Amino acid sequence: MSQGYFITFEGGEGSGKSTQIRRLAERLTASSGREVVLTREPGGTPGGEEIRALILNGAVDRWSPVSEALLMSAARRDHLERVIRPALARGAVVLCDRFADSTRAYQGQGGAVDAEFIAALERHVVEDTRPHLTLILDLPVAEGLARAGARAGGEERFESKGQAFHERLRAAYLAIAKAEPERCQVIDAAQSQDAVAAAIEAALAERLGL
Amino acid sequence: MSQGYFITFEGGEGSGKSTQIRRLAERLTASSGREVVLTREPGGTPGGEEIRALILNGAVDRWSPVSEALLMSAARRDHLERVIRPALARGAVVLCDRFADSTRAYQGQGGAVDAEFIAALERHVVEDTRPHLTLILDLPVAEGLARAGARAGGEERFESKGQAFHERLRAAYLAIAKAEPERCQVIDAAQSQDAVAAAIEAALAERLGL
Repeated sequence: MSQGYFITFEGGEGSGKSTQIRRLAERLTASSGREVVLTREPGGTPGGEEIRALILNGAVDRWSPVSEALLMSAARRDHLERVIRPALARGAVVLCDRFADSTRAYQGQGGAVDAEFIAALERHVVEDTRPHLTLILDLPVAEGLARAGARAGGEERFESKGQAFHERLRAAYLAIAKAEPERCQVIDAAQSQDAVAAAIEAALAERLGL
Repeated sequence: MSQGYFITFEGGEGSGKSTQIRRLAERLTASSGREVVLTREPGGTPGGEEIRALILNGAVDRWSPVSEALLMSAARRDHLERVIRPALARGAVVLCDRFADSTRAYQGQGGAVDAEFIAALERHVVEDTRPHLTLILDLPVAEGLARAGARAGGEERFESKGQAFHERLRAAYLAIAKAEPERCQVIDAAQSQDAVAAAIEAALAERLGL
């Protein structure tokens, strides 16, 4: 068995990542003959989920963007060491709901943390475990926030940061996709769920042969 | 009132930092006419204390040294923003039980985290809030671990890392003191508590006029 595939899902609030990643996991489990690992950030390990609870709940100013970037990075390192790298070494397909691009977008562009610091963190934490494919689910901000607001509570710290913050996020993701087209594909998330799933399926087939 | 003084206490397990920092706080409160802020790392803020609980408890391999360095840095940033910098701006004397040298020693030398990464974290997290004086309480490792083992439970993750780890810590602290003599003073912590307190008092008088 060759080494695995590392596929990350990115996008703003309400972009439908969780739904799509579950659909893709079901399809790949049925069709690829590979182990499929479905995981998320921050989280994905016992320690990472504890850090997730610290980051996502509570008052909007609970952590500064620099502290957030460090907490996200601590959780990411734990996730890489204990889940992602072992799964890739087994030949699995790892589907991860958010990864390092979220730190670039949320804390870097959204929170105005120095881009050089974000890059240094990513370099030292991720090292050479870069995604083979990153699917960026893109949606107008107002629509995403409306969808996110309609779902059941919890984890609202980022949703409450306001429209301008979320516009910076969207712009950051589109800039990442433009800068790294060999890794990233933008998916129009305003389409129906079935159309989004078909676009994701096409991207995997074309880029990874999966 | 001039700007405050930032004084950090460093040293291995059982070196008597907590006792000495409390003694010094009492003396300064009585004699200096300044506000004295007694605090610690990891911790010192509500968020920092939550991170402290994640770091110090649990199995010895609960976090890798890189994850630890990131968690320590997240807590440090929160502490700097919410406690240390505001206190220094008020003209207070801030006495801090552990600071960035602990990350250099425990995760850098002790945990073999890349020194360049430790330095980059410190530069971006601490920025220009460097201690005016760092007191390094030095003690033979066996004596320190015997003292630490004799005290009541909790927070044992680092104490259980073994003699070789603690020898690396001690060497790291002595190397920091040698590299930065204008900031650091080594105090012989094998002396009686009264003699250690007198040595600390002399260091503050000579170096800071406090």
